[in-house]
Amino acid sequence: MNSADAGLPVRVPSTALFTDHYELTMVQAALRAGTAERRSVFEVFTRRLPAGRRFGVVAGTGRVLDAVENFRFDPDVLAYLREHRVVDEPTLAWLADYRFRGDIGGYREGDVYFPGSPVLRVEGGFAEAVLLETVILSILNHDSAVAAAASRMSLAAGDRPLVEMGARRTHELAAVAASRAAYVGGFSATSDLAAGFRYAIPTVGTSAHSFTLLHDTERDAFTAQVDSLGRGTTLLVDTYDVAEAVRLAVEVAGPGLGAVRIDSGDLLLVAHRVRAQLDELGARDTKIVVTSDLDEYAIASLAAAPVDTYGVGTRLVTGSGHPTASMVYKLVARAASGDPGAPLVPVAKKSLGGKSSVGGRKWAARRYGPDGVAEAEIVGTGPFGGGPAEAAGGAGTEPLQVELVRAGEVVAREPLEAVRDRHLAVRSRLPLSAMQLSDGEPVLPTETPHGGGPE
Amino acid sequence: MNSADAGLPVRVPSTALFTDHYELTMVQAALRAGTAERRSVFEVFTRRLPAGRRFGVVAGTGRVLDAVENFRFDPDVLAYLREHRVVDEPTLAWLADYRFRGDIGGYREGDVYFPGSPVLRVEGGFAEAVLLETVILSILNHDSAVAAAASRMSLAAGDRPLVEMGARRTHELAAVAASRAAYVGGFSATSDLAAGFRYAIPTVGTSAHSFTLLHDTERDAFTAQVDSLGRGTTLLVDTYDVAEAVRLAVEVAGPGLGAVRIDSGDLLLVAHRVRAQLDELGARDTKIVVTSDLDEYAIASLAAAPVDTYGVGTRLVTGSGHPTASMVYKLVARAASGDPGAPLVPVAKKSLGGKSSVGGRKWAARRYGPDGVAEAEIVGTGPFGGGPAEAAGGAGTEPLQVELVRAGEVVAREPLEAVRDRHLAVRSRLPLSAMQLSDGEPVLPTETPHGGGPE
Repeated sequence: MNSADAGLPVRVPSTALFTDHYELTMVQAALRAGTAERRSVFEVFTRRLPAGRRFGVVAGTGRVLDAVENFRFDPDVLAYLREHRVVDEPTLAWLADYRFRGDIGGYREGDVYFPGSPVLRVEGGFAEAVLLETVILSILNHDSAVAAAASRMSLAAGDRPLVEMGARRTHELAAVAASRAAYVGGFSATSDLAAGFRYAIPTVGTSAHSFTLLHDTERDAFTAQVDSLGRGTTLLVDTYDVAEAVRLAVEVAGPGLGAVRIDSGDLLLVAHRVRAQLDELGARDTKIVVTSDLDEYAIASLAAAPVDTYGVGTRLVTGSGHPTASMVYKLVARAASGDPGAPLVPVAKKSLGGKSSVGGRKWAARRYGPDGVAEAEIVGTGPFGGGPAEAAGGAGTEPLQVELVRAGEVVAREPLEAVRDRHLAVRSRLPLSAMQLSDGEPVLPTETPHGGGPE
Repeated sequence: MNSADAGLPVRVPSTALFTDHYELTMVQAALRAGTAERRSVFEVFTRRLPAGRRFGVVAGTGRVLDAVENFRFDPDVLAYLREHRVVDEPTLAWLADYRFRGDIGGYREGDVYFPGSPVLRVEGGFAEAVLLETVILSILNHDSAVAAAASRMSLAAGDRPLVEMGARRTHELAAVAASRAAYVGGFSATSDLAAGFRYAIPTVGTSAHSFTLLHDTERDAFTAQVDSLGRGTTLLVDTYDVAEAVRLAVEVAGPGLGAVRIDSGDLLLVAHRVRAQLDELGARDTKIVVTSDLDEYAIASLAAAPVDTYGVGTRLVTGSGHPTASMVYKLVARAASGDPGAPLVPVAKKSLGGKSSVGGRKWAARRYGPDGVAEAEIVGTGPFGGGPAEAAGGAGTEPLQVELVRAGEVVAREPLEAVRDRHLAVRSRLPLSAMQLSDGEPVLPTETPHGGGPE
């Protein structure tokens, strides 16, 4: 693992500027007031899921760990901050020495979450912990939004593979993170080479309409493609007339043609026609890939169509209507005074217009029924008791938080494959209603046990 | 200008991997077929604006120029492509020598666009031009979506300044591009330090609720902030009780307090109350900043409220409901044969399900009435005649395309300030209905003059 790697296809020296101006001015004011080192607990959570969604998907945790490791103020950054008088000299000196030395824990990446789930917890001195707010939220809000859309699409697709093809519809680096999040949510491959390079996600792709249009005839184009990429390639058959193109594709490549791709029209109708035609031509193993404006609903509507693979672009990378999760990063507890060893006290903004929070450091567990199906998300404050079972009331209760960073050192790296497997495993233990695409309530209620609820 | 700068807050060696797999396999097949060097014209355009929108805003052109200059296949990238057998050895050799040597022209950044406007044109050999598709679309689709939302918000805000605060709601690098696009669309400042560093956009910010909660009392927090940041700072007054906080703020900072910020509640009501209270306390010059879940509609609804500055986050960076523009990159003409000097012939995918295009290399002009107000967008194919006036029919007709890259060299860099000024100037010449936030038709019709329309 390269610690200079911040989730980009290339190395970057620092993630420290992915930060709101006010984080630095707060550090300055707290340093001067002598409150900068007060032990503080920040939590990341969401007050609600996007309207109608049944569950959220934690994604981006691995990128958060990269960003935290890599959060340093280099000389050119300090020079910029000095020149623009963002903060004063004592603060610049403090930033020059900065590295996060606190602790981070939270849900495992790929797990699901619900309103109030303490997805991430950052503990340390106020100044060192508040600085991480912006970059942590950027990563989790973006990646979790895409992963949630991906998971719904993969539920709709069943066993058929999904390919992420949305790079052209989002920022070029958001696209790389979106590929990663889509993989977590159940996608199998991506069109984005940067995502392949950075995260070892399988990449796929063959040709676009421009390739057919470049050549004097469709036959020339198909011949050129098959000559170069082999008969296992995927030929795009909707540049001119689909039936003619399918006939030509099998003539040029033979019945061993890998696949045909349909990128426009009524996919249900066209897929049925193309399947019948391929079968008639003896190309029974030639697959059908569809790629036009798909989302989870369109995918579900094609369940009965003879489609082998779905390619999804726009709706995936824009979170299928919800391009950002609404996670916030809130101070929930801090030392009662500046004395070393002062106890933590819960803190919370007073409710005004729905922006209330529950103060206090939280633990979280998930309760499962005798059938192994999840029943509730349990979020409490205060001590966790002798163990999760006791605290949360039952043998089928599993704690949800793990240690991610200990005294500034990342302790929980894992391969993306493991994250993806976890998501599919966790999802399979949710109530069946998690599969419903229609709007509804979260599939698990968030419970706050006695003594652990809002005050 | 640093040519290694790809629009990031840091230098990256190459943008070549922000590319879909199929661009490279098309290059391979075309190289083998002998068609890779055929002169080709690709155009970027959108078939429609997002539902109800009156105009689009071209943003990202400057970032496109950076990306094109920087599009090189480095040894580690080539090694990745070889290891994963993305393309064959002759193609790898071709990629190793790649740099774009063609021409790019298009609308000026900050200009407006309409359905069919040829926003960008890329001309060169097929292979060199097709490779740029993904990264060009990523940039223009993202940045134009944000700029369009920003422009609507700035129309709604009138003379009141707007601050971009959405970094935490989008991917950390998309956030930097979003700040840039927001500036183009009329915003004045950003909270994002990376955007300040990279694009010299003014950054602002003072404190969050966590800063108040960190301290034993609100008075301690305000005192700490004023001691460090001066009485010109902005105090956040909605952590506990707004009226009490306003009283305390003026007590601590004096009537010269710079501003108070309200981040929750009924902003219209609260702003009126706070203004009255500030005036009563003698703090007549203390400004009011509001920052809670704003979009263009909320901003418009606050027009009569005593608000001085708007801070906008989520809805801005997610394009206010339309997080991506639907621009496409289409081959519209290519050499009739492989002979050097062969004439260009128009090409287009056959219509199927609304994905039709108009073939042929296009010119574009905007017609203005005698009152100086724009009347129509004119998009034609074929020669532009003796001049725009002749071709498009009137003395009040102005051509819209400029040269951006000539034989691989960028020829049209400009400061972001100039782009922003252009947007505001162009927008002021649109019909008044461009200011309407309600859904409607594009404010200019796209006309195709005789001989230049769809075939």
